[in-house]
Amino acid sequence: MSLSSRHLLGLYGVPKEDIQLILDTATTFREVLERPIKKVPTLQGKTIVNLFYENSTRTRISFELAQKRLSADTVNFSTSTSSAKKGESFKDTVRNIEAMKVDMIVVRHQSAGVPYFLTRISKANIINAGDGLHEHPTQALLDMYSIREKFGTLKGLNVCIVGDIAHSRVAMSNIFGLKTMGANVSVCGPSTMIPFGIEDLGVKVCKNIDEAIKNNDVLNVLRIQLERDAGSRIPSVREYHNFFGITSERLEKNNKNILILHPGPINRGVELSSEVADGPYQIILDQVTNGVAVRMAVLYLLGTMN
Amino acid sequence: MSLSSRHLLGLYGVPKEDIQLILDTATTFREVLERPIKKVPTLQGKTIVNLFYENSTRTRISFELAQKRLSADTVNFSTSTSSAKKGESFKDTVRNIEAMKVDMIVVRHQSAGVPYFLTRISKANIINAGDGLHEHPTQALLDMYSIREKFGTLKGLNVCIVGDIAHSRVAMSNIFGLKTMGANVSVCGPSTMIPFGIEDLGVKVCKNIDEAIKNNDVLNVLRIQLERDAGSRIPSVREYHNFFGITSERLEKNNKNILILHPGPINRGVELSSEVADGPYQIILDQVTNGVAVRMAVLYLLGTMN
Amino acid sequence: MSLSSRHLLGLYGVPKEDIQLILDTATTFREVLERPIKKVPTLQGKTIVNLFYENSTRTRISFELAQKRLSADTVNFSTSTSSAKKGESFKDTVRNIEAMKVDMIVVRHQSAGVPYFLTRISKANIINAGDGLHEHPTQALLDMYSIREKFGTLKGLNVCIVGDIAHSRVAMSNIFGLKTMGANVSVCGPSTMIPFGIEDLGVKVCKNIDEAIKNNDVLNVLRIQLERDAGSRIPSVREYHNFFGITSERLEKNNKNILILHPGPINRGVELSSEVADGPYQIILDQVTNGVAVRMAVLYLLGTMN
Repeated sequence: MSLSSRHLLGLYGVPKEDIQLILDTATTFREVLERPIKKVPTLQGKTIVNLFYENSTRTRISFELAQKRLSADTVNFSTSTSSAKKGESFKDTVRNIEAMKVDMIVVRHQSAGVPYFLTRISKANIINAGDGLHEHPTQALLDMYSIREKFGTLKGLNVCIVGDIAHSRVAMSNIFGLKTMGANVSVCGPSTMIPFGIEDLGVKVCKNIDEAIKNNDVLNVLRIQLERDAGSRIPSVREYHNFFGITSERLEKNNKNILILHPGPINRGVELSSEVADGPYQIILDQVTNGVAVRMAVLYLLGTMN
Repeated sequence: MSLSSRHLLGLYGVPKEDIQLILDTATTFREVLERPIKKVPTLQGKTIVNLFYENSTRTRISFELAQKRLSADTVNFSTSTSSAKKGESFKDTVRNIEAMKVDMIVVRHQSAGVPYFLTRISKANIINAGDGLHEHPTQALLDMYSIREKFGTLKGLNVCIVGDIAHSRVAMSNIFGLKTMGANVSVCGPSTMIPFGIEDLGVKVCKNIDEAIKNNDVLNVLRIQLERDAGSRIPSVREYHNFFGITSERLEKNNKNILILHPGPINRGVELSSEVADGPYQIILDQVTNGVAVRMAVLYLLGTMN
Repeated sequence: MSLSSRHLLGLYGVPKEDIQLILDTATTFREVLERPIKKVPTLQGKTIVNLFYENSTRTRISFELAQKRLSADTVNFSTSTSSAKKGESFKDTVRNIEAMKVDMIVVRHQSAGVPYFLTRISKANIINAGDGLHEHPTQALLDMYSIREKFGTLKGLNVCIVGDIAHSRVAMSNIFGLKTMGANVSVCGPSTMIPFGIEDLGVKVCKNIDEAIKNNDVLNVLRIQLERDAGSRIPSVREYHNFFGITSERLEKNNKNILILHPGPINRGVELSSEVADGPYQIILDQVTNGVAVRMAVLYLLGTMN
């Protein structure tokens, strides 16, 4: 069995069978990560370029570790040390990298659509590691993997995504993937952060966090990206925390069986209280570990399909 | 058979047999790049340091891929993350790196002569990846490889280098290498960009681009380095393009059999029209692929000669 | 036999047997560095993260080479390309990295105590590569290795550390390690650079450099860290050199059998004259080579003890 596409650009339109295959394959690699020797020779001799136009700690390291544990050769390209300032077009840069006989490109870029654009100019397998406000499919896959690990299934689960939905590629990928897998998806956040027409995607909108906690099995709580312009959409960080912040009191009052996910990095005291961030409801560090396994699965499936 | 020098500092004075050996060896590695597993164990256990004092995308990645595909261990050193700001002399930095038992150093530096200086203070094999306005030998070798691949030979070919000859290490290395291999070399560009006395190297000067196209088999078109001070030597970018820019019209009018090379990154609309940059006359991306093979050949020949 | 701790945070309190074991193991790896293939498969499949919050050339490259020569997979994390600016706490960053199933973390940080803190939040083996003004144990180990190589033993040797003792983690680690191994340790420098109460550590204070040279077998001369605030503790660089700089005249007049160490980078003409830095008394580049072997030993012993 193999994936129906040579690339992973997003989860929009990806068939259920593909997601299932990725999650099942990730289970195997998750076991590899518990071994003393966390390495398999699967992608030996393959070359993967990490093309990161946005800074990132966890995503880049997670991909790099996944690649090295599959025995691939990796080359990192970041704008800070590149000749991008020589005025070369992005297209020419990519075509050059590809001409060096690269097998896969993992790309993060501030502009939506860049990974798709890469598929038109390169023969490499393209993996989207986050493009503008569009998608971040491996994050959603690791979220789904982590939920499935706890509940055994995604079908029929009630999952609510909390935060700045309108400006989150993580939210978009989660919505597409979870819907495909049969979950009931809702979103919760201040009106300024809920995209107009989101209901057309079959997503319910909930304006009250206590109700969201009450009515769901899982809360995927997004990071409020204060380093971007999230601050302009809320009266204050304190007010956001008062109305939408997840605290132990809120969880204990409303739903003691809820599972809390967060893609990190956490703003402690903003979207999550510190008690919740370290507490028994969350599986934030499991998500990180699962992220390596999920990325190994994606790289393996794409790298061995031809 | 082996090279006559332990280092590759430039192509000046390099005997014909050495260039021939590098190009022939590169042919083997060019085939490796077409295999699913683009890796050979030749330099396993060897350590190569990439010492880049100038930013670079393509040259650094090309060398790094060549090294990894030969199974060498590579360490990147760039000024941005180093302790150069602690006031250590360049000599002390290099001697320290060498004391870590490094086998080869690939060096790019803004000052001419730095690679030679390294040979005096280090026992490692030194490979020049571009030093000031002096030489950039692996670029010239990949240019020659690409030309030879098309014509079967370099001997007797008419090759014209176009652009800012006076400030180009690529031009210098091409002139030395091509002359050694028996090509007829000329240069073409505005007077401000032609070095005084270039004819003494046995190089013809042509001031008219249409004639250059007419009279040559190959045009190696240099990048106008606007990010440096190339702008001060031409009235305007538009005027440069009008007088020396390569356009489809010019090629079709003067010589439909001409081959266009460019070391990249391209200034589209300056030295090449976009139509030419993507068109049937050029082999720009072949040059990039060949560059990895040529660098593998150089690393292999130097790394296994002792 | 194995080390008594899973981490290397400093040399304070480390038993003699541990130091002995590290130095003996380093001898083996020092021989590996003389082979054509300087690589052993010992840590294959292990993942090591280099977490450098301070810039560094030699220490990072030395660790990276040691790791690659043990066949470990390495990932570099530096603040310049990270998401530290997203406001994530240091603790969360580390727990995230550790959740990716990292086996060892090598950490350099401007704050004393950070490596210890890591042991409380991570299951990985922690190796201190320098923390604030606290310790830099691998530097002291390589210094001791280099001294032992020359004299056959450390016991009973007279070793004087010269320079800004009060602001040197290298000095602290050397004092702890050398005392444990039975050396007689003294320090020499201007009063502004000698920490109050240093005699309580069993360390003699010498205010005169000629006497220090006369009375010792070894001088470990520290770098005056002018890029930090060392300048505020001396009247001038010239005056420091006049009173405490090591010159050939001073060595020849006082003690022709003395051995000079320096951790690098050297300020030529400040703590050492250029003649001494390149002369017969010093073993500065041997220290660098030995540093790779000592770090291989530490990584090997910690990585294989569980």
